[in-house]
Amino acid sequence: MTGITKKTRKNLMIFSGRVGRDLAEEVAELAGTELVPTQIYDFANGEIFVRYEESVRGCDAFVFQSHAAPINEAIMEQLIMVDALKRASAKRISVVLPFYGYARQDKKHRGREPISARLVADLFKTAGANRLMAVDLHTDQIQGFFNGPVDHLMALPVLSAYVGEKYARQDLTIVSPDAGRIKVAEHWSRRLGNAPLAFIHKTRDIHRPNVSVANRVVGDVAGRVCIVVDDMIDTGGTIVKAAEACMEAGAAGVVIAATHAIFSDPAVEKLAGSSAQEVIVTNTLPLTPEQYFDKLTVLSVAPLIAEAVRAVFEDGSVTSLFDEL
Amino acid sequence: MTGITKKTRKNLMIFSGRVGRDLAEEVAELAGTELVPTQIYDFANGEIFVRYEESVRGCDAFVFQSHAAPINEAIMEQLIMVDALKRASAKRISVVLPFYGYARQDKKHRGREPISARLVADLFKTAGANRLMAVDLHTDQIQGFFNGPVDHLMALPVLSAYVGEKYARQDLTIVSPDAGRIKVAEHWSRRLGNAPLAFIHKTRDIHRPNVSVANRVVGDVAGRVCIVVDDMIDTGGTIVKAAEACMEAGAAGVVIAATHAIFSDPAVEKLAGSSAQEVIVTNTLPLTPEQYFDKLTVLSVAPLIAEAVRAVFEDGSVTSLFDEL
Amino acid sequence: MTGITKKTRKNLMIFSGRVGRDLAEEVAELAGTELVPTQIYDFANGEIFVRYEESVRGCDAFVFQSHAAPINEAIMEQLIMVDALKRASAKRISVVLPFYGYARQDKKHRGREPISARLVADLFKTAGANRLMAVDLHTDQIQGFFNGPVDHLMALPVLSAYVGEKYARQDLTIVSPDAGRIKVAEHWSRRLGNAPLAFIHKTRDIHRPNVSVANRVVGDVAGRVCIVVDDMIDTGGTIVKAAEACMEAGAAGVVIAATHAIFSDPAVEKLAGSSAQEVIVTNTLPLTPEQYFDKLTVLSVAPLIAEAVRAVFEDGSVTSLFDEL
Amino acid sequence: MTGITKKTRKNLMIFSGRVGRDLAEEVAELAGTELVPTQIYDFANGEIFVRYEESVRGCDAFVFQSHAAPINEAIMEQLIMVDALKRASAKRISVVLPFYGYARQDKKHRGREPISARLVADLFKTAGANRLMAVDLHTDQIQGFFNGPVDHLMALPVLSAYVGEKYARQDLTIVSPDAGRIKVAEHWSRRLGNAPLAFIHKTRDIHRPNVSVANRVVGDVAGRVCIVVDDMIDTGGTIVKAAEACMEAGAAGVVIAATHAIFSDPAVEKLAGSSAQEVIVTNTLPLTPEQYFDKLTVLSVAPLIAEAVRAVFEDGSVTSLFDEL
Amino acid sequence: MTGITKKTRKNLMIFSGRVGRDLAEEVAELAGTELVPTQIYDFANGEIFVRYEESVRGCDAFVFQSHAAPINEAIMEQLIMVDALKRASAKRISVVLPFYGYARQDKKHRGREPISARLVADLFKTAGANRLMAVDLHTDQIQGFFNGPVDHLMALPVLSAYVGEKYARQDLTIVSPDAGRIKVAEHWSRRLGNAPLAFIHKTRDIHRPNVSVANRVVGDVAGRVCIVVDDMIDTGGTIVKAAEACMEAGAAGVVIAATHAIFSDPAVEKLAGSSAQEVIVTNTLPLTPEQYFDKLTVLSVAPLIAEAVRAVFEDGSVTSLFDEL
Amino acid sequence: MTGITKKTRKNLMIFSGRVGRDLAEEVAELAGTELVPTQIYDFANGEIFVRYEESVRGCDAFVFQSHAAPINEAIMEQLIMVDALKRASAKRISVVLPFYGYARQDKKHRGREPISARLVADLFKTAGANRLMAVDLHTDQIQGFFNGPVDHLMALPVLSAYVGEKYARQDLTIVSPDAGRIKVAEHWSRRLGNAPLAFIHKTRDIHRPNVSVANRVVGDVAGRVCIVVDDMIDTGGTIVKAAEACMEAGAAGVVIAATHAIFSDPAVEKLAGSSAQEVIVTNTLPLTPEQYFDKLTVLSVAPLIAEAVRAVFEDGSVTSLFDEL
Repeated sequence: MTGITKKTRKNLMIFSGRVGRDLAEEVAELAGTELVPTQIYDFANGEIFVRYEESVRGCDAFVFQSHAAPINEAIMEQLIMVDALKRASAKRISVVLPFYGYARQDKKHRGREPISARLVADLFKTAGANRLMAVDLHTDQIQGFFNGPVDHLMALPVLSAYVGEKYARQDLTIVSPDAGRIKVAEHWSRRLGNAPLAFIHKTRDIHRPNVSVANRVVGDVAGRVCIVVDDMIDTGGTIVKAAEACMEAGAAGVVIAATHAIFSDPAVEKLAGSSAQEVIVTNTLPLTPEQYFDKLTVLSVAPLIAEAVRAVFEDGSVTSLFDEL
Repeated sequence: MTGITKKTRKNLMIFSGRVGRDLAEEVAELAGTELVPTQIYDFANGEIFVRYEESVRGCDAFVFQSHAAPINEAIMEQLIMVDALKRASAKRISVVLPFYGYARQDKKHRGREPISARLVADLFKTAGANRLMAVDLHTDQIQGFFNGPVDHLMALPVLSAYVGEKYARQDLTIVSPDAGRIKVAEHWSRRLGNAPLAFIHKTRDIHRPNVSVANRVVGDVAGRVCIVVDDMIDTGGTIVKAAEACMEAGAAGVVIAATHAIFSDPAVEKLAGSSAQEVIVTNTLPLTPEQYFDKLTVLSVAPLIAEAVRAVFEDGSVTSLFDEL
Repeated sequence: MTGITKKTRKNLMIFSGRVGRDLAEEVAELAGTELVPTQIYDFANGEIFVRYEESVRGCDAFVFQSHAAPINEAIMEQLIMVDALKRASAKRISVVLPFYGYARQDKKHRGREPISARLVADLFKTAGANRLMAVDLHTDQIQGFFNGPVDHLMALPVLSAYVGEKYARQDLTIVSPDAGRIKVAEHWSRRLGNAPLAFIHKTRDIHRPNVSVANRVVGDVAGRVCIVVDDMIDTGGTIVKAAEACMEAGAAGVVIAATHAIFSDPAVEKLAGSSAQEVIVTNTLPLTPEQYFDKLTVLSVAPLIAEAVRAVFEDGSVTSLFDEL
Repeated sequence: MTGITKKTRKNLMIFSGRVGRDLAEEVAELAGTELVPTQIYDFANGEIFVRYEESVRGCDAFVFQSHAAPINEAIMEQLIMVDALKRASAKRISVVLPFYGYARQDKKHRGREPISARLVADLFKTAGANRLMAVDLHTDQIQGFFNGPVDHLMALPVLSAYVGEKYARQDLTIVSPDAGRIKVAEHWSRRLGNAPLAFIHKTRDIHRPNVSVANRVVGDVAGRVCIVVDDMIDTGGTIVKAAEACMEAGAAGVVIAATHAIFSDPAVEKLAGSSAQEVIVTNTLPLTPEQYFDKLTVLSVAPLIAEAVRAVFEDGSVTSLFDEL
Repeated sequence: MTGITKKTRKNLMIFSGRVGRDLAEEVAELAGTELVPTQIYDFANGEIFVRYEESVRGCDAFVFQSHAAPINEAIMEQLIMVDALKRASAKRISVVLPFYGYARQDKKHRGREPISARLVADLFKTAGANRLMAVDLHTDQIQGFFNGPVDHLMALPVLSAYVGEKYARQDLTIVSPDAGRIKVAEHWSRRLGNAPLAFIHKTRDIHRPNVSVANRVVGDVAGRVCIVVDDMIDTGGTIVKAAEACMEAGAAGVVIAATHAIFSDPAVEKLAGSSAQEVIVTNTLPLTPEQYFDKLTVLSVAPLIAEAVRAVFEDGSVTSLFDEL
Repeated sequence: MTGITKKTRKNLMIFSGRVGRDLAEEVAELAGTELVPTQIYDFANGEIFVRYEESVRGCDAFVFQSHAAPINEAIMEQLIMVDALKRASAKRISVVLPFYGYARQDKKHRGREPISARLVADLFKTAGANRLMAVDLHTDQIQGFFNGPVDHLMALPVLSAYVGEKYARQDLTIVSPDAGRIKVAEHWSRRLGNAPLAFIHKTRDIHRPNVSVANRVVGDVAGRVCIVVDDMIDTGGTIVKAAEACMEAGAAGVVIAATHAIFSDPAVEKLAGSSAQEVIVTNTLPLTPEQYFDKLTVLSVAPLIAEAVRAVFEDGSVTSLFDEL
């Protein structure tokens, strides 16, 4: 037969944008390599420039970026990175999103709104992404927004293992800060010996609808150590109010746990000043030194992501990483 | 200028497959027209044949089909109807789904599962659908599965108005049959004077994990009339168990309300024999005479859909139909 | 260079839906493996659920399903299987269709009809299929409906070898049961020593156009053993009438041969009661025990498909399998 | 409401490339307008340049081109015309193909061949075509190659009306020049009082397979006036041989009829020198003065196309133009 | 015929993001309407939220945003606006880009770079844009990056008319600040009586390649009034150096003219301190009060855009706006 | 795990259409293989037929065709070749375009024109091309027209090395034949020791605008050896006029250099009769024997392309081939 035949090899390369680079470096190291040297800088008018300093032809690329502030720049930068990889003949491009931006805009709350979480999935597809990898999506349905494989990693085993070791399981009640997040609380409950559940029901006073909101605790928390759980902490308003509501309802103590530490102002102040005895988050989003405070515990998801990256590269099972869920 | 100029006219045409035809006819009548005469039949081997008996060129088509059993045939039939409209030069094709099939498979519960709800959206897009209209999607995120406009109609105003008139608001507690559906219960609560909420927490006995499941009621139901709400009733297992749990927890009475009456076996038997005093559903899915029972109330969504169809045809606002939500 | 390099391996995996599983198992065995363990079941309302019990990441997947009754469920099930494979990171997905459903609706016979055969091709593309493999498509043009490679296997060598060995070539006339299928008869003729051709011309009596249809045999069949050939037998009406017309025209005997045994009612009864001395089909479609009858011969296409699967997996030539055609 | 509202008007504009311009002009005149002034010329290296001399913004464009020699230039020119219309904001672009190039390559005859007829459909889609209009496609399945509406016009009523008036129906036999085109002959038969059919069966001598081909007439033609029909006449080899075979088989006379007069060399010479008493074609393809000969009759399809263009423009039924078929 | 028929109307609606809103308002006013009331704000973590306060169903939407700093937010905001319009059933969406971001990254200058200008076009297509309208694209080829109609408006008539009236044409020389922009200078020359051209050739000293760059003026500028022209002024470095080079080469005076006033630091300082006697720009990008300086002249492109918007809405010719070019 | 595992191999195969076959053969030989045997011929009506004579399943295909006259046939032939490869399961298809047809129509010069260079890119994508490889695109932006990787090879090193060796660098001035191509001249200058630049400014006499065009040399050429450079020579009009203008302005000599020798009539006559002492081109386009003339030098780009093909096949860097640029 005419032609030239060769054995095929594949090459794993890990890239990172400028947001959340520490996590990407940690993952690369755990995977046994390092980040591919890349020029990224802003032009005077804010346009982002990207250039890879090594050939990426034929590589199996993993492109990291955490969608932290300035979030729109982070997204555009990652899109541009993907475009450059596509045009430079990367073989397969996996976009790694430790935190998926705009995940909360996953539906139209009212008419004439965007569904930005779907838009983000489509933008990455258009730029050239073949697959996504994300940690703790705000809702599972977001997997369905991407037209291709999505590896959905869960930080819950990391967080719940820590809580389970530190606090006595029989004392715990899992509390969801609002009605929409009870599903997450149920997952926690299952991993912590079927701990009881409670949730906060927000109501408006029907006589003075615009004035005040009452937070009723639904479920028993008196005398219990409440683990108030959510997928993310943005300004901290909801979760801190939930913690206070638990204390008022007679809780023995409150621990706050969430995967994504967005920590927009005034989250740090609120959390530090709350009656929670510990605040547990992961490093899916980068924190500045000023955002650390005494009772904050940050757990790393790097081992989790590194294992998933290897499984994807070697065609192993990512599902088995979460078998115990 | 060269050419021939004419005023443009648009033409609303309503079509229906063989499932849920009564509802489509009711809508057509309310809209002031009737269903377009259409041949639909099965060939000997079950292949479906469709042919429109009038020209549909340039029309603004609304194609109804309820995804009831045999559900896969219902979907294929509607896809074929859309294909025939596309090839016959319909100008715009709106697929009307009073009940959206496979809506519950809107995420991967575990690895290596399909996301069939996204698949269904893509299949309609491929066949030629320009837009979807659906009633009470299982999760709001499904709107984001379709790459185009989705008119999401809500039966809640119909159902809650009926409940609000028949039962004394101050006695009511809204109960979600599981943790994942509390959001729906919150909508009900808001429309019924901020009625209190409760939900059923299913747990496995940690000592005998595979044997039994306890249904704990979280929230206060003692002495209350419990409105157990969900978007759909399939075999009725979950919702009837929730009703019984409420009664056991001292409820004064139980009313079951849901939009979609799938009523797979043995739903009718279970509901009829349950301690619920009334079961309220809508006609998004067709019921056979055998599926009616004494305490069943069926409310029609035809006026709702007819109004939305007109709004879409006339470029009016569908959102405003739900302003009070 | 940065990164980690590995040799690439590929992995053949064979999957089957619930229709025509015997054939898939036979192919898997011939290929030296077995079907991948897969959960497939219907929910109470008929929605199909699929889950693979092994990691399929990176595999070269062949997904079998025969489009037999209930045909629309068979198609939806296969679409869902493809979606699950795509989302679980299968590397390449080949859809294997021993019988391609809706193949006869490959054109608009009149205005305002669908072209369902094209629709089916597009649905598989949308779900994630990279390629199709099919046996004896109703028309060759269907290959062009799929936007990608189609391996079109032919059962003719299997069928004609059997006929050529059993019946004396010099006695044979190949008969097409209608004008549109003479091309198939020509292929048979070529493989059987340029046997003479005949076909049945259906006409309406011009004086009583709506009443009766005459079947004229065009070509000489007197004293010949007529091999009445077609790609499929559905209700058997056409082919049995053709057989009878041959006998009436003085044929020495009639043998019926076709690839796809759809055998919708009342095919079995008609064929069994016809004057044909043998009815030869293949196993592209599953037969129930009740569908077997004395003079029926079923030949297996499994070796053919197994060889093609291996060729596709190993980048060999499928064309060469049909060199003698 | 904010904004400015206006009544909508639509504007029919007809365009033509440089091949088959006479037909386009005839259609435009019948439709009551004229061709839009357009610059089309070749650059020195053969690249084609197109520019419209009037605004085409918002128009309903019909772009004519016959795919006659040089056929590849004709196709490229039409693609470029469509691109220019798309970029100049035409509202809807209908590509009119009196003769669809590459229609005969509608399947892979053997492995590793293109399906150029599908490719052509996709190229027009890519360039921006919203719909196709074609006359007498080589096979009906080609309609399914285009992902959108196709108006398939038939010249048969024009041709058969002429034959039916000129020749005595009771004397006629319809002859297909090969086995694959009998379907066309059947359509003729139906329109001419169920005239009998015959076809030519080409065989190779099995003892000397590479040497000679026999043309057997299957069916009775002795004493009949044979109307040898096909969709197109290219070099005329097949159809003239068929005519001679009929004469040799005792036909009383032969008339040749076909829609598309490709007339590649040496068609004119062969047809003029054949024993056919008349050769009837249409003007779907342009003929040079040298291609006319005594017994040639050319019928115009312009009225047919003009009626279809108006129906498309005015959202009328094209199907009804062929009701009698 | 079944159905309901109505006359069609179309509705022009103009929208603006938060960047360059003044220009959008000016255009809306000239077009005889006002901007559609729209909520746009940032969430705490920088995610942008958009909601239209009026029904946009069926409208002909024009969505303005100038891609000024923070440029990536401006782009994301506009993408989200388009997504919301698409999902709210706008009929046609035209994206208006007075300044097209990333236009300078219109090619790979070296390997492994993105082509961000193409990416931006694709992102808007994906979000739902049907067409683009832009002023003075950095290169004309960018029109080809969008798969659909692009209305490319030119500010040159506005700028050159002003210069032609204020300065004596016979004294002028048009100067391009580098070799790549001479085409623009040629357009200026043509509109100003075939004024002579010159350009600046930047060279490196071949003996000390990394040290210094000489700016040679190619062409005669001695005693002439030099109009140094470019499409945009970013930091002003190139154009001010060009102005100084002209003065050193004996120019009688220098005027700087450009369409897009990006004015990144230290552009204002440099321009104000340069020997140019006037700096002429347009309002395609918003300027802060601090960015104004004495010799700056800002011309409005609002009339130009308003005329183009009306032409698009009313299917008139945009090309004719630039006939004199 | 179920399934069969094998090592993966890849296979380079080189194909060529009928235009520029010599270059493809030279590349294949340098790469260590030969062209895959392929049948290509025209049917009587000019339709092109292609069939590969070997299995191409799974191959890494490079498909050569120079877009020389008859250019539209060359393009269609290459599209058909790509379609056949796609349908025959080639794994990756790289389209090699030594000269990219329609590259000059890369923008709308005025309204209502096509952007044929974008159209060509889209046509190849549609046919099935995964990547393009081209030599010296008319503008770099054309890379952005293709939605995928483009390897843009440059002949400048080949041409300039030859000039640099043959002519004394210190005597040279690089001349661009018009204002729009100075960028190319700058690249030449950089490779030839920062040689001075000049360009030709074409102006119309403002008093007799339609009559005459003056070609002014901008920059100093007196006493210099002028290298008049362009990317292509079509009819030669522009470049020969530029050469004469240089001579009139006192140049010591003129050498013409360009990559693409289109040589449409009367290029050969003009070039041969011009005062240029040497005309240097490459073999990206085939020349007939009649197109050779005494002072013509043809350099081969085959080594360049062969190196790039190998780099693509082996996942090496193509960028590094041009490091010195």
